[in-house]
Amino acid sequence: MQPQRDLRGLWLLLLSLFLLLFGVSRAGRPAVSCPAACLCASNILSCSKQQLPNVPHSLPSYTALLDLSHNNLSRLRAEWTPTRLTHLHSLLLNHNHLNFISSEAFSPVPNLRYLDLSSNQLHTLDENLFSELQALEVLLLYNNHIVEVDRYAFDDMAQLQKLYLSQNQISRFPLELVKEGGKLPKLTLLDLSSNKLKNLPLPDLQKLPAWIKNGLYLHNNPLHCNCELYQLFSHWQYRQLSSVMDFQEDLYCMSSKKLHNVFNLSFLNCSEYKERAWEAHLGDSLTIKCDTKQQGMTKVWMTPSNERVLDKVTNGTVRVSEDGSLVLQKVQVEDGGVYTCYATGEAFNETLSVELKVYNFTLHGHHDTLNTAYTTLVGCILSVVLVLIYLYLTPCRCWCRGVEKPSSHQGDSLSSSMLSTTPNHDPMAGGDKDDGFDRRVAFLEPTGPGQGQNGKLKPGNTLPVPDVTGKGQRRMSDPESVSSVFSDTPIVV
Amino acid sequence: MQPQRDLRGLWLLLLSLFLLLFGVSRAGRPAVSCPAACLCASNILSCSKQQLPNVPHSLPSYTALLDLSHNNLSRLRAEWTPTRLTHLHSLLLNHNHLNFISSEAFSPVPNLRYLDLSSNQLHTLDENLFSELQALEVLLLYNNHIVEVDRYAFDDMAQLQKLYLSQNQISRFPLELVKEGGKLPKLTLLDLSSNKLKNLPLPDLQKLPAWIKNGLYLHNNPLHCNCELYQLFSHWQYRQLSSVMDFQEDLYCMSSKKLHNVFNLSFLNCSEYKERAWEAHLGDSLTIKCDTKQQGMTKVWMTPSNERVLDKVTNGTVRVSEDGSLVLQKVQVEDGGVYTCYATGEAFNETLSVELKVYNFTLHGHHDTLNTAYTTLVGCILSVVLVLIYLYLTPCRCWCRGVEKPSSHQGDSLSSSMLSTTPNHDPMAGGDKDDGFDRRVAFLEPTGPGQGQNGKLKPGNTLPVPDVTGKGQRRMSDPESVSSVFSDTPIVV
Repeated sequence: MQPQRDLRGLWLLLLSLFLLLFGVSRAGRPAVSCPAACLCASNILSCSKQQLPNVPHSLPSYTALLDLSHNNLSRLRAEWTPTRLTHLHSLLLNHNHLNFISSEAFSPVPNLRYLDLSSNQLHTLDENLFSELQALEVLLLYNNHIVEVDRYAFDDMAQLQKLYLSQNQISRFPLELVKEGGKLPKLTLLDLSSNKLKNLPLPDLQKLPAWIKNGLYLHNNPLHCNCELYQLFSHWQYRQLSSVMDFQEDLYCMSSKKLHNVFNLSFLNCSEYKERAWEAHLGDSLTIKCDTKQQGMTKVWMTPSNERVLDKVTNGTVRVSEDGSLVLQKVQVEDGGVYTCYATGEAFNETLSVELKVYNFTLHGHHDTLNTAYTTLVGCILSVVLVLIYLYLTPCRCWCRGVEKPSSHQGDSLSSSMLSTTPNHDPMAGGDKDDGFDRRVAFLEPTGPGQGQNGKLKPGNTLPVPDVTGKGQRRMSDPESVSSVFSDTPIVV
Repeated sequence: MQPQRDLRGLWLLLLSLFLLLFGVSRAGRPAVSCPAACLCASNILSCSKQQLPNVPHSLPSYTALLDLSHNNLSRLRAEWTPTRLTHLHSLLLNHNHLNFISSEAFSPVPNLRYLDLSSNQLHTLDENLFSELQALEVLLLYNNHIVEVDRYAFDDMAQLQKLYLSQNQISRFPLELVKEGGKLPKLTLLDLSSNKLKNLPLPDLQKLPAWIKNGLYLHNNPLHCNCELYQLFSHWQYRQLSSVMDFQEDLYCMSSKKLHNVFNLSFLNCSEYKERAWEAHLGDSLTIKCDTKQQGMTKVWMTPSNERVLDKVTNGTVRVSEDGSLVLQKVQVEDGGVYTCYATGEAFNETLSVELKVYNFTLHGHHDTLNTAYTTLVGCILSVVLVLIYLYLTPCRCWCRGVEKPSSHQGDSLSSSMLSTTPNHDPMAGGDKDDGFDRRVAFLEPTGPGQGQNGKLKPGNTLPVPDVTGKGQRRMSDPESVSSVFSDTPIVV
């Protein structure tokens, strides 16, 4: 082996001499050799644990992975690399002392897909700090001193899938990051564990699709204990979401300055979580999502009678929409039951069951229609009926019709009916419109002190009216008016 | 800030107390807490630079990334993790002292996609060491002491895309890794730089598609200087392949114990590299690949007259096959010229030009047909012509035909023609088949010592034959035989 070792030494010596003599100034592409502090393997530059206070100068433009972890970097300035590193896809800056990153620091690395800034001393994330990184998929910011997530720090990061913000000082939940169709449409993992979150936007969180909630880590935060929180995490537990299942023991909340496990809040007497059925009424239309834990799964729905639901409605009222949701139109009572969604993904398969209850009456539709066309129609029909009653069913009193008209409405005389819809053409009655009502129909005139016994009316061409005991009043129909059909007194024929 | 700090301290104290009291024995999934030496951010376990002599015990089953870099690990045994880590996709073991890896070490991590074993002390890669890692995409083995790549070390790694073997002691080029349709069908980067390679399988390398050669790094090796090597890398340089363009200054070879840059071999007087045109002959069929630097590009071919080549032959003889190759069937002279392939990829676009020369004659086809049908046909025609000549063009000697037949073939009598294809039905001639040939056509009988002067023949019913000077022989046609048309003596009429 000795001669071989000698040969190797000679070879290295020759190589060094050659490098010195040959120089780096050959025609063509300028050669940027491997920085002294780094180990270079084609497009990988490994410069970790070298106590570097700065990023090495003159990095080769072909660099694809740059490892600067475990060094003494404290600031990442805009000019940290003089050359644009368009091939760089992974930049490791973890375990440094970074407390400042220029807002233009990532301009020279537009194609970065993986950025590790964990275990540094970052306090703030400036507005649009990462906005240049439109290809970034994974961003590690755990174990820093971040107090607040700027609302615009992660704008325009359309490809971001995983964001680790664990072990910081964050006290506000950055809802804008997880809202569906929001800033980060591909985000499937947001780690906010071990922060200072006290309150969560519970209704907003509950509305999120399962594939976001599955990667939304919230353990080890001093959350405020209440039954809504318990219900939220109980639902996530029921759905076997990783964010809860993997950290059941670490999901805490605070009450009276004491820490409690979220699933052990007996002192609050919260009701147990139960998966509720979907409720619908006859003729309703509704869409039920197959809320899987992973995006982009292939979904197949089965009816309660175990028949596959097709994309198009063949018989019945159900079909599957393009995004894999179950669509029911004009549900019938027989559509009720348990529907099952079988989702097939790359990593795992999932089965979801949804119960649908259909009530045998319409609800929402009733109210709507009552307020518009139906009320008008009913009003019209009623009017016509009343007119017809007026015209044909009026008690036939023509033979005993007198010409006498009441002289006045003095005393306790009372108009009996105000249902007439016909205008008052009686000039006398017209003169009595003192309260805005027509009173031409019938007048019950008290007899007054001079009224005869046994209900006898005052002399004049009037019919005798039976005495209504307990009322102390006697009514008299005016032959020109419609008798009140709603009166609780029988019509005098 | 002081009260807040106090509160934080209290919170941490309470958390610790709670953990102690509450224990880790709740019903449901057993809780595996974060190992003491690690920093845990949801599914990431960062245990780097902790001087760990062994992998921490009881790793959580949900771990996705495990960073054990910069520790003191020396052996990776089969039982390094008691639990199967099916979610683990990245395992960082770089910068340790690993000199042994059990052949079953990777059984518990079947879904690993990224494995960093760089900067260790590995000497050998056992057979099927990585075969369990059927999902592995990137394997970093640079800066080890690997002497040889076992032919079966990387079997069954169908997903492997990048393999870094730089800075080892490898002296044999592992051709089995790069062969198209071989063990690693998706391999686009093989880094063999800074090893001990002396000889390369040059013809095999030249045959590889450009997308493999583009990522085949061979710089900093003591290659043997020769013109074939120069031609190989000149071609790669002409094609602007990254493996050569990024390391032009580091591509060396050795000659007479001296190192030379591969592109500076003037002492060898190698001819300059020139891209050769494709050559074809009339009626040939050929397939020209659009040999792009990246896989899976969309390819469009343009003819010399700048028309787009379609998938199906419409007019002319060219079409584009399913894999984007140009297919020419029965080429004509007018098919010659420069064809251009425009390839569009995710990262970049590429334009390739290919010159086609079509010679105005057939080459291969000529030889083939001559040996079979054509020869038979020509033979037949020739026979017929000879028969016809025999029948109609024989010198008219009917009036002087004799009945005499040669008695024997003694002395220097010579059969003049052996071209007859008809069987010999002459019993006399049949008896003379001593050499396997029929000699019934014509006999030229020497006159012998008793032959008369001036060409006079022996007495008998024979025709006088003109004397042929310089031959000393006289020939006589047998009327039942075909006269030799190939004889250089004129036929005596």
